[in-house]
Amino acid sequence: MQNFKAPQRDTLFVTNELLGFEEHYQRLGFEDATDDLVKAIYSEAAKFAENVLAPINATGDEEGCQFNDGVVTTPTGFKEAYKQYVEGGWPSMSHPVEFGGQGLPYSLATSMAEWFSGANHSWAMYPGLSQGCMETLKAHGTPEQKKIYLEKLVEGSWTGTMCLTESHCGSDLGMLKCKAEPAEDGTYKLTGTKIFISAGEHDMSDNIVHIVLARLPDAPAGTRGISLFIVPKFNVDADGNITDRNAVKCGSIEHKMGIKGSATCVINFDAANAILIGEPNRGLNCMFVFMNMARIGTGVEGLSATEAAFQGALAYAQDRTQFRSMTGVKNPDGPADPIIVHPDVRRMLLTQKALREGNRALAIYCMQLVDITQYDQSPEAKKIAEAKLALLTPIVKAFLTETAQETTSYGMQVYGGHGYIKEWGMEQLARDTRICTMYEGTTGIQAIDLLARKIMGSKGELLKVFTSEIKAYCATIRDKQQFNHWSNAIESHVDEWLQMTNDIGLSAANNPDELGAASVDYLMYSGYVTVGYFWLKMAVVAQQKIDEGTSEVDFYNAKLQTAKFYFDRMLTRTRSLVSAINSGSENLMQMDAEHFYQG
Amino acid sequence: MQNFKAPQRDTLFVTNELLGFEEHYQRLGFEDATDDLVKAIYSEAAKFAENVLAPINATGDEEGCQFNDGVVTTPTGFKEAYKQYVEGGWPSMSHPVEFGGQGLPYSLATSMAEWFSGANHSWAMYPGLSQGCMETLKAHGTPEQKKIYLEKLVEGSWTGTMCLTESHCGSDLGMLKCKAEPAEDGTYKLTGTKIFISAGEHDMSDNIVHIVLARLPDAPAGTRGISLFIVPKFNVDADGNITDRNAVKCGSIEHKMGIKGSATCVINFDAANAILIGEPNRGLNCMFVFMNMARIGTGVEGLSATEAAFQGALAYAQDRTQFRSMTGVKNPDGPADPIIVHPDVRRMLLTQKALREGNRALAIYCMQLVDITQYDQSPEAKKIAEAKLALLTPIVKAFLTETAQETTSYGMQVYGGHGYIKEWGMEQLARDTRICTMYEGTTGIQAIDLLARKIMGSKGELLKVFTSEIKAYCATIRDKQQFNHWSNAIESHVDEWLQMTNDIGLSAANNPDELGAASVDYLMYSGYVTVGYFWLKMAVVAQQKIDEGTSEVDFYNAKLQTAKFYFDRMLTRTRSLVSAINSGSENLMQMDAEHFYQG
Repeated sequence: MQNFKAPQRDTLFVTNELLGFEEHYQRLGFEDATDDLVKAIYSEAAKFAENVLAPINATGDEEGCQFNDGVVTTPTGFKEAYKQYVEGGWPSMSHPVEFGGQGLPYSLATSMAEWFSGANHSWAMYPGLSQGCMETLKAHGTPEQKKIYLEKLVEGSWTGTMCLTESHCGSDLGMLKCKAEPAEDGTYKLTGTKIFISAGEHDMSDNIVHIVLARLPDAPAGTRGISLFIVPKFNVDADGNITDRNAVKCGSIEHKMGIKGSATCVINFDAANAILIGEPNRGLNCMFVFMNMARIGTGVEGLSATEAAFQGALAYAQDRTQFRSMTGVKNPDGPADPIIVHPDVRRMLLTQKALREGNRALAIYCMQLVDITQYDQSPEAKKIAEAKLALLTPIVKAFLTETAQETTSYGMQVYGGHGYIKEWGMEQLARDTRICTMYEGTTGIQAIDLLARKIMGSKGELLKVFTSEIKAYCATIRDKQQFNHWSNAIESHVDEWLQMTNDIGLSAANNPDELGAASVDYLMYSGYVTVGYFWLKMAVVAQQKIDEGTSEVDFYNAKLQTAKFYFDRMLTRTRSLVSAINSGSENLMQMDAEHFYQG
Repeated sequence: MQNFKAPQRDTLFVTNELLGFEEHYQRLGFEDATDDLVKAIYSEAAKFAENVLAPINATGDEEGCQFNDGVVTTPTGFKEAYKQYVEGGWPSMSHPVEFGGQGLPYSLATSMAEWFSGANHSWAMYPGLSQGCMETLKAHGTPEQKKIYLEKLVEGSWTGTMCLTESHCGSDLGMLKCKAEPAEDGTYKLTGTKIFISAGEHDMSDNIVHIVLARLPDAPAGTRGISLFIVPKFNVDADGNITDRNAVKCGSIEHKMGIKGSATCVINFDAANAILIGEPNRGLNCMFVFMNMARIGTGVEGLSATEAAFQGALAYAQDRTQFRSMTGVKNPDGPADPIIVHPDVRRMLLTQKALREGNRALAIYCMQLVDITQYDQSPEAKKIAEAKLALLTPIVKAFLTETAQETTSYGMQVYGGHGYIKEWGMEQLARDTRICTMYEGTTGIQAIDLLARKIMGSKGELLKVFTSEIKAYCATIRDKQQFNHWSNAIESHVDEWLQMTNDIGLSAANNPDELGAASVDYLMYSGYVTVGYFWLKMAVVAQQKIDEGTSEVDFYNAKLQTAKFYFDRMLTRTRSLVSAINSGSENLMQMDAEHFYQG
């Protein structure tokens, strides 16, 4: 099995060379986040991912979580790794100093979360869910709630969850049934069953803070009658000390295709003590803070799987010998040539590489936008960043996880039959990352969020904010003739994107199903164009470094070569997507539901 | 979990209404294979698939095969199901009466093999491998070998395997090392280790007949020095009675992503008694009989997974309620509408449906060609069928298995998070069918076989034999104006296909890597056009039935509606494939192998 390596160099290329993070951090007032500090943290994070998390990835899959009468035992080593994570100060990195955090930027913690997930997707979900819980408390908790709950979460001695789904409602939260009855002391008694609760029960932390969606007795029906509650596993007194067990119990854990080291729990609340967060009936709005972060985080999980699959496939392709190159022997001392000489093996590897690097640029760009929305002093800069983030969040979630299905599948395919065997690790990557297009809102949900809620909901404004950035950039590089071909391709895609959006809007005015009919292909189209824009920018940066006489010519040349691959063979996938989008909804809607299967 | 149903009606549509099997069987002299008999056999096969095989599919996955010191125990019920299979006479169906067979056509047995695999992929591999072994013996065995080995295999009391792969060579069989030394009595002593041997050891049959590729001592290097041998698990005397154990032992079984009920064995031969089949050093040629059959069979496995995933996803989409339709409430008595009202859910279901039916037409057409190559009295008809089959075999293998990755993934996706949970059965389908693009020659190997060996190797002749059929068909329906749009689409694709083939041939004359660079996209292009041709034909048949006043209007209307979906949203996938193909090999070949990963 290939050892996972944290992609430090490539991450630094994106942060420092592509996106100007040194200046970005200084501008936002993160004076401590110097280049030296960032590199030192990266180096430690890489060691943790490579030496602590990666070695317990396959064993965690093999063992899985064990369930026994409400108690969940995580796989061997998970608990100890979490202890090291806490000792290393990782949970607190991007949280405010006043709650015990280190006051570093969100983007710094999240770019490293990619490596933790790449090394061990299942393990990384435990701290990942905690981060979502912390963000929710930070945004909507009272000072007292923050004092009692947030500090312990930041410290890492407690972990958190987000409890949304019930068996009859996943995407459609308006149907949820969990109830919270007011108690006399201003708290609530919460009753009901939640499913699919990641990290809902485990043996890593002293307490678990559940953030739960439920209805008050007089709540209106639908999404406008949902409130948000804190429900701790162990009750806590006013000083933050654990008292007794709350009426919260894990009923069972799911048997899943992958992420077997991550406990996916049924959680039963039986008149459990609960505390309201935010305003009554405004729970879904509070949840959006978490949801948007979690969606970027899920996209990053997809990216991490792409990275790991690329590393695994590449190592095998360089090592495995089979057949001779059709253009002549390349490895005369061996019985055959390494399979990386074969064009189709390269096609798979370059697909992985182009997505590994292009998707990383998009993901870290989104993290940069989150930094701005959280810390920028300029209301105008904040507003623009919020608009771009609103547009890009469903894209980063869905595009990075959908393409991870392809890259992890190629991870196996490059190995041939060996890819199907557990010991090589490639099939685990495919199984683990398969969840990513389904949880935190399916690809279909992201696509409707993008096209209906974000784009049509803003009458196209959100799209224009981002396409203006792209067009403005293309205008700045008109003099670089070498890039005109790619720049023109991006500009004509942007025009097509805007025109197509307009056309869909017109047809949807008569028939709202036109939105759903176009949505997923539209989202994937948006993803290919967006990543194409970043490949254009990366190519320009790479050429500039070469022109400046860099000592890393091979690194930058590979960027230019990968950009060529992307423009030749991946951006062109938009051609089929456009055909499908333009075909409209009739080909989907005309069949009666009962006629789909007739024997 | 959705109960698997054998798609009898749709199979009969393809065999009888699309491909004229009634006349086809009569013409080939299968006088017994009347429509009534076929339907009666179908009905029994459906019962066996639905009532015997489907119920042990999930449990077989859960239990897997057990290995203990050379002994393999198959999952609970597998052995008993095999006994029923033998008692039902299924192994013997398509084999000659002189060896105890029922003398029915290959296509009849193979179209039902789809259902067995759809009900239980793992189980179906045991008899599937036996069929390959039987075909090899039928084609290349001496009368004595047939008498001793073939009769027992036909009867089903023995099973067979095919032993090709060694740890260092899978695709590149020229590198294989297993050795066979001549013994004094004209037999051989075979020594070496084979891996990935499906059904290599198990508890279902009295003996296992291994067909093994190995080298004679004086054999030339490479593929021209490979011979084919029979190596039984138990030695057999001249009367066909089992004597003692041969020096053949299962060393271990693989731990795999899926098909866990299928034993994938390491088989050690330690100077095992072996009998030569066919001429010395001509083993690979003998093997092609088996390989081509196995490749069609693997394509059929992909089809079967598509069928099962479609059935599962459809049942859930009709049952699960979530959100209201954007065009108004469709299920006023429920809390929400069934998710089949949502356009994107329909897009996934229709993709499955279009591939389920279009791929079935292609698969059964290939089976019809096999019938002709085996039984037709006309040398000319045989020759044409052989040419078409040579062209279509890599397409049916790779296209039906690659598209099965998409359809089984949609099977999960329609279920949302529930798709990831074992109890629904959808994730097992995805895991089980994942092997199909890798074993029996990867997609990359099929693509090179198609483009380099078959098409360029015949100077385009094999392609023209099939495209002539398509063009001739399109010419016959020019008067049906309703179909002109689709017919024109197919004809222009055929022209593009021929032109593109010509262009690739020209560029490959200078640079043979152009073949590999185009190959997989070219194969997928060929698949979409071929299946498009069958959708055109199916649509014409459906309209004809409606015009004739059929009582099954809904069935035929659904065919027309699915055809529209295919032409609007699936055939158009060729647009991106053409762009990728035309981009040539430079974008794949320019990067140095060492520069792919630089941190």
